[in-house]
Amino acid sequence: MTERIDLAAVMERLAGAEDILLLCHKNPDGDTLGSAGALYWALTALGKRAAIFCSDPVTERYDYMQLGLYDGSWEPKYVAAIDVAGIQLFGEGAAQYLKRVDLCIDHHPSNSGYADATLLEPEAAATAEIIYLLICRMEVEFTPVMADCLYTGVSTDTGCFKFANTTPRTHHIAAELMERGAHFVHLNELLFESKSQRRLAIEQTALSHLEYHFGGRCALMYVSRDEILQTGADSNDLEGITSIPRMIEGVVVGVTMRQLESGSYKVSVRTAGEIDACKICAALGGGGHMRAAGCEFFGNLENAKAAVLAEVEKQI
Amino acid sequence: MTERIDLAAVMERLAGAEDILLLCHKNPDGDTLGSAGALYWALTALGKRAAIFCSDPVTERYDYMQLGLYDGSWEPKYVAAIDVAGIQLFGEGAAQYLKRVDLCIDHHPSNSGYADATLLEPEAAATAEIIYLLICRMEVEFTPVMADCLYTGVSTDTGCFKFANTTPRTHHIAAELMERGAHFVHLNELLFESKSQRRLAIEQTALSHLEYHFGGRCALMYVSRDEILQTGADSNDLEGITSIPRMIEGVVVGVTMRQLESGSYKVSVRTAGEIDACKICAALGGGGHMRAAGCEFFGNLENAKAAVLAEVEKQI
Repeated sequence: MTERIDLAAVMERLAGAEDILLLCHKNPDGDTLGSAGALYWALTALGKRAAIFCSDPVTERYDYMQLGLYDGSWEPKYVAAIDVAGIQLFGEGAAQYLKRVDLCIDHHPSNSGYADATLLEPEAAATAEIIYLLICRMEVEFTPVMADCLYTGVSTDTGCFKFANTTPRTHHIAAELMERGAHFVHLNELLFESKSQRRLAIEQTALSHLEYHFGGRCALMYVSRDEILQTGADSNDLEGITSIPRMIEGVVVGVTMRQLESGSYKVSVRTAGEIDACKICAALGGGGHMRAAGCEFFGNLENAKAAVLAEVEKQI
Repeated sequence: MTERIDLAAVMERLAGAEDILLLCHKNPDGDTLGSAGALYWALTALGKRAAIFCSDPVTERYDYMQLGLYDGSWEPKYVAAIDVAGIQLFGEGAAQYLKRVDLCIDHHPSNSGYADATLLEPEAAATAEIIYLLICRMEVEFTPVMADCLYTGVSTDTGCFKFANTTPRTHHIAAELMERGAHFVHLNELLFESKSQRRLAIEQTALSHLEYHFGGRCALMYVSRDEILQTGADSNDLEGITSIPRMIEGVVVGVTMRQLESGSYKVSVRTAGEIDACKICAALGGGGHMRAAGCEFFGNLENAKAAVLAEVEKQI
C-alpha cells in the first residue's frame, strides 16, 4: 500500500534525497520525458546528482530537452518514477532499479500505487503540470530548458490543448511556461506539424483502401503486412493513423485494420457521439474505452471486415 | 484619417449607439464571425437592436454561434466593422453599408484606418481577444454562447494555440473562456479534427504526385484541373493542402501546384528555417511572406516545375 503524499511532502523528500534516479515509462512520450527532464534540471540546479532512465531509447526528436540520461557510473540511492502508472510500464530493462521505488509522481487515475510514496493528481492533464507546480516552489531558477521540457509534456498529453483532459489550469500553465522562455513556436512545429516520410507513406497506403459503409457513417481502411513492410512504418506510425477515418465529416465510426506478422488483423475502432467503441470490440473479444477500442481478428481480410462491420451495424 | 481609440472609448460609443450593424469580412473565418457573434450577444443583452452582416454566406459549421444575421428589416444607425483590415475586404455585397463605418475593432497590423474610429491591437492573436476584454467590462452576463464564439475566434486564428501569434494572454483568455462555459471539446473536434470527404480526396490525389528533390529537402506535389473537378475540391480545400509538403520531416521547402481554369499553375511555397519563400516566388513574379508565398506560372506542368525548382535550388 503506497503512502499518498502532497506537493510539500514531495519537496521535503527530494530535498533530503541524494543520487536520484528518475524513471520514465517504456515507449517514452513527451510527458514522461518532459516531466523527468524538468525535474532532472531542477535537482541538478539544487546541486544534487540525478539522471533519467528509460528502458526504451529516446528518439533524437527530443534532443532539445538535453536529458541527462543515466550512464551507470554511480549507484542510485533514491528512485522516483515519473508519469508511470504501473510496474509493468517500466519495461524489462528497468527491473534492476525496481527493488524499491521511493516516490512516484503521476496523473494517471489507474496508478496502481506500487511506490513507497505517491503524489497522484488525476485531474492534471499531464504529469508536467504537477512538476511545474513543484519546481515553482523549489528554490531554483526556472530556466528556458525546464520550460521547454514542461511545455512538451503539457502540449503532447493534450494534443496541443485539444483533448478533453485540458483544463483552465493547463492553459494558465502554458502561458506561464511561455513567459519562462519555452520555445513554443519551434516546439509546436516539431511536435504537431511534422510527419515522417514513412508515416505519410503508410497514411497514403491505408487511405488508398478507404471504404465508406452505412451511408458514410462508418469509414474503414486497412493495410496489409506487405504494405507495412514496404513503407517501413513502425508501431508509432501505425498507431498514429488510427484517428484518420473518424475525422472524416459525417463519420461516427472509424475503423483501421492492420495485418500482423501472424497474418491476423489488429482492429482499431474510434467513435463519435453516442456510439460505444468498446461494445463493438468487446463483441469480438477485445476492449477499450467508449471512444477508442481495439481487438484482434484471426482470419482473412474479408472475414475480418465482415465481422467488424456486423458489430458496427448493431451500434450505429 | 481614423481616430485611434481605446477600450473605454469603444464602450462609451457602443453604449450610446442604437440599431447597430456588425460587419464581418468576406470569406468569413472563425475570428470575424466569433468576434462579431459575441459582441452581437452582448449588445442584445444590453437591450440594443443589433445584427451581423457578411457579404459571403456563413457555413452551417458555425451554426452553434447562433449568429443574429441581418435580415434587412430595419435601418442601421451605427456600423461597426469587426476584424476587417481594409475596405476591400468587406466584399461587394457590403457596399451599401460602407457610406460611414463608425467603428472598427481589429488586430491586423495592416489595418488601413478606413473607419471613423478604430480600436487596433496588433499584438492580439485574434480580434476575439479584444472583444473578450470588452465584454468583460460591459455590464452583461457572460454566457456560454459568447464563450463559444470567442473560443472559436481565438483558437482558429492561432491554429489551436500553435502559431507564432499565440501569446501568454491568449492562453489565459482560453482558460477564462473555458471557465465561462465554452464547449471546448466539441469545438476542438469540429474545428480541428474534422475533414470533408472532398478535402481528404484532394489531399490523396495531390500526395499521389508527391516528389522529393534536393535530397529530400524539397517536397513538391501538384493537382491538375481535372483532378480538382473530380474531387469537387473548393478553394478552401485547396488552400488547406498547401501546408502538407512542408510538414514532412527533413523538408525545408514545400511546394504545391494546382492547375487553374485557364490551364496555368498556381504555385504555393511554404518554407522552414532560414529559407525565404518570398524570394523564390518573387523571382517568378509572385510575392508573400518569409514562410509562405505564392506565384502563378503560365505554361505546362513540366515547365512550371522546372522553373520553380530552379528558384528553390538558388535558395536551398
